[in-house]
Amino acid sequence: MSTAAETANRAKFLEELIARGHLIPGGEPGIYGRGSDFHKIFTAFDELVTRMGAADRPERPRFPPVMPRRTLERAGYLKSFPQLCGCIFSFGGADAAAFDLAARAERGEDWSALLSKTDAVLVPAACYPAYPAIALRGPLAPNGAVLDLGPCWVFRNEPSEDPARMQMFHQRELVRIGEAEDVLEWRDTWMSRAALMYEKLALDARLEVASDPFFGRGGKLLANSQREQRFKFEMLAPIACDEPTAVTSFNFHQEHFGTAFGIQFADGRPANSACVGFGLERITLALLRAHGMEISNWPRRVMGGLWPDGFTAGN
Amino acid sequence: MSTAAETANRAKFLEELIARGHLIPGGEPGIYGRGSDFHKIFTAFDELVTRMGAADRPERPRFPPVMPRRTLERAGYLKSFPQLCGCIFSFGGADAAAFDLAARAERGEDWSALLSKTDAVLVPAACYPAYPAIALRGPLAPNGAVLDLGPCWVFRNEPSEDPARMQMFHQRELVRIGEAEDVLEWRDTWMSRAALMYEKLALDARLEVASDPFFGRGGKLLANSQREQRFKFEMLAPIACDEPTAVTSFNFHQEHFGTAFGIQFADGRPANSACVGFGLERITLALLRAHGMEISNWPRRVMGGLWPDGFTAGN
Repeated sequence: MSTAAETANRAKFLEELIARGHLIPGGEPGIYGRGSDFHKIFTAFDELVTRMGAADRPERPRFPPVMPRRTLERAGYLKSFPQLCGCIFSFGGADAAAFDLAARAERGEDWSALLSKTDAVLVPAACYPAYPAIALRGPLAPNGAVLDLGPCWVFRNEPSEDPARMQMFHQRELVRIGEAEDVLEWRDTWMSRAALMYEKLALDARLEVASDPFFGRGGKLLANSQREQRFKFEMLAPIACDEPTAVTSFNFHQEHFGTAFGIQFADGRPANSACVGFGLERITLALLRAHGMEISNWPRRVMGGLWPDGFTAGN
Repeated sequence: MSTAAETANRAKFLEELIARGHLIPGGEPGIYGRGSDFHKIFTAFDELVTRMGAADRPERPRFPPVMPRRTLERAGYLKSFPQLCGCIFSFGGADAAAFDLAARAERGEDWSALLSKTDAVLVPAACYPAYPAIALRGPLAPNGAVLDLGPCWVFRNEPSEDPARMQMFHQRELVRIGEAEDVLEWRDTWMSRAALMYEKLALDARLEVASDPFFGRGGKLLANSQREQRFKFEMLAPIACDEPTAVTSFNFHQEHFGTAFGIQFADGRPANSACVGFGLERITLALLRAHGMEISNWPRRVMGGLWPDGFTAGN
């Protein structure tokens, strides 16, 4: 629900973030540069996640923000969220067409018809590239796998004036693959850890049953079913207006990705999986909203939680 | 020049990198996941760049890997490198078209005709988003600006089996904007710093006058002119074969970006600019080639250069 007052609040918050150098206008809605203080908060929270998850002794692979188109298809993304996908097109022509393209661009005309699809798409959810990588290894060990994917850039085609809804942002994502009970226990552990983290950082975050933004008329049914089965939880905190926004999500996929990507135990059963995603930009923004635009004025307890070795001002 | 022997060497090196867990096949040429040791080397070199550049007291803004299409047009990228661009397309249709799209994807058919262009493109060179951001501030101070953009993901549409030529990789990019003489002096300082860094890391890197991969028949002339004017230098090191590959580039743009993006001094003159780009994946690969696949066996001096506080094995 977006009222006129909320829209005004969002605009005011964005204006303040820009005036204080935390965000840098990027020329399109939802595309921003980040100032150095913003980046410091972002990095400190990212490192807090690392410390909180260290007990799991996760593997730490890293994946780029593009992946094969085929991974998007196999994950079933196009059925659920076609409106959010980002597919990469490029130019494969020869001299004459290249000349035409450059000339159109120079005249400010549309040159998109000269492009054609490549085999790459933008990663829409940080865990997607991990599933085929795990499947490649062969049968899953009985205790499965725990992955910490680090801070990952993900893309969603949803230009918005709300600074909490960027087109390209970081998910700090953790993934558990294994037996259903192990996966669910791990997800619950992260719910407790996240609650502890937000308490430490004096963020007013609350846990809710949630659903994904499924596309179209059929999407409502999917969302309702997801809620009823309690497959997705979110922690929400106020960011650009009083109405809180999701800052962390806890997702149980059952056998969806195990089946889609062929991740199996030695006996052939598909693996279950769950992921936890921290929205690093949203959390940074929520902290700026809660504690003010100037880090050095933040409560001591919050500073101590983010910078246990002390905060260093300056570039 | 790519001989059959070089192609075989590249395939062998890639195979070894995958077998040792440094790279994870991503399902398309030039798209790889990175293992945790690879990421450790990558991060350590990135931090070495930070230490080497600290004396410049750079500003440290961060930009996402997507930017407005208009920035690509203004930078003149489409005239020079249309074949490398990555433009983002998405789905803007309603229920019936979405159903068609998902059905085509499920049948393994082409669904790209149902997509349309968005206003976002992938960043092809890490410094591009910085120019409009600096222009936004108004007139440039007499001593200009020094930027450290951190490790930035950039995209180039050039699928290749050479592990040193990825489609999505990190440029660690530093930018100097100001008077021509200041900019050139800064570029030369970084040439010395880079030479020192590679010496410390026992990498056999050599400096050469270079040119960009300009498109088409006209491109050769542009490349020759760029070489004659010594606008671009590269440091090259052996990676996947004996023929060395560029690992760092030093680029003087004259007033190109100053004029294109309206970065001016108070008297209205356009600024000059230069950038230095470290290819973080290539440098990581060059180190693995030079010193072996197992970090803990690397020469002590190299370990000390990368991990002055000591190397920690494990995840």
